[in-house]
Amino acid sequence: MNYQSLKPCSLLSPVPSVMVSACGPNPGDRPNIITVAWAGTVNTTPPMVSISLRRERYSYDLIASSGEFVVNLVDEKHCEALDFCGVRSGRDVDKFASLSMKPMPAEGMRYAPAVCGLPAYLSCSVRQIIPLGSHNLFLAEVVGVQVRDDLMNEDGSLHLEQAGLVCYSHGVYQRAADVLGFFGYSLAKPDVRRRRLAGYRKT
Amino acid sequence: MNYQSLKPCSLLSPVPSVMVSACGPNPGDRPNIITVAWAGTVNTTPPMVSISLRRERYSYDLIASSGEFVVNLVDEKHCEALDFCGVRSGRDVDKFASLSMKPMPAEGMRYAPAVCGLPAYLSCSVRQIIPLGSHNLFLAEVVGVQVRDDLMNEDGSLHLEQAGLVCYSHGVYQRAADVLGFFGYSLAKPDVRRRRLAGYRKT
Repeated sequence: MNYQSLKPCSLLSPVPSVMVSACGPNPGDRPNIITVAWAGTVNTTPPMVSISLRRERYSYDLIASSGEFVVNLVDEKHCEALDFCGVRSGRDVDKFASLSMKPMPAEGMRYAPAVCGLPAYLSCSVRQIIPLGSHNLFLAEVVGVQVRDDLMNEDGSLHLEQAGLVCYSHGVYQRAADVLGFFGYSLAKPDVRRRRLAGYRKT
Repeated sequence: MNYQSLKPCSLLSPVPSVMVSACGPNPGDRPNIITVAWAGTVNTTPPMVSISLRRERYSYDLIASSGEFVVNLVDEKHCEALDFCGVRSGRDVDKFASLSMKPMPAEGMRYAPAVCGLPAYLSCSVRQIIPLGSHNLFLAEVVGVQVRDDLMNEDGSLHLEQAGLVCYSHGVYQRAADVLGFFGYSLAKPDVRRRRLAGYRKT
């Protein structure tokens, strides 16, 4: 098996590609959406996520001054809107209006709205900001989570695999598709494994 | 559009699901593989990634004492091995031997090996460890990157979309499949857009 060296780079893939919505704390501040791929889960208890932002991005000050942001998971239907939010600045355009998308109040947030119509969102309260170089790392606690009704089964379980979520790998957006397995399936008994794998809806 | 509230949790999805390989600095230390989904890119310049680990995991001390780890991207062929590395402990089993996988020297690392046969790996030097609760966050600089030959085009470009990489969403592993677009495609001219989208190999 042969390998080639690349210049050290941020090749970790696939990473989430999400719409982060935020609004400043001042009257008249307009909510904005920024696309973030430098995002991750960083802690389970309490639940925490991180996002990394360049200091010069328009949303940086909205988030730093309000201490809030909302991570909106994005499905394939909204992939082009996701890209748009990553290449245009909130300084120049009202992204909600341009995309005909609506902000809605986000659970647990005072300022930051969620983006209506997307599969799910996480309301996040900033706990720490760490400068790293090109980007500053925001560590935030997840204080609210909502998911779209149609992704919930009648038994109250969440079928996120059905959402057709978008991820990002080395410059391209891809769809999270086929379910390959569930956590622990490598040690599951054959019948349990078969039954559980059959239970995931096709996307 | 109706939404339901869930208890606040780490629902960010899809997230990467990678094999992290490490070895302690002492003679006789045995290399180990741990599965990590709480991972992300945190900085572009210098390139940095984060991984979060529970303090009690076997690999925690290997990484904390050597200051090194390797992030190995995983393809669908190795998804079951990936799951196995997440549910068994290196205290009890030699995961390389159990999975018939081979460690190989990783560019820029003194102790941590890469996992031979996987699509790509990132050699990482720990810069900072931040306790967050259940997990500690390792912030690390990417000091080396290698990719498997067959993922490189003759023009020297990397076709990572062809690797069939694994991601993780709410308890299930999924394959990153169809290319939906490329960074900036929402603003690209129709002919550029068509030509570039046709250039991504089908997975």
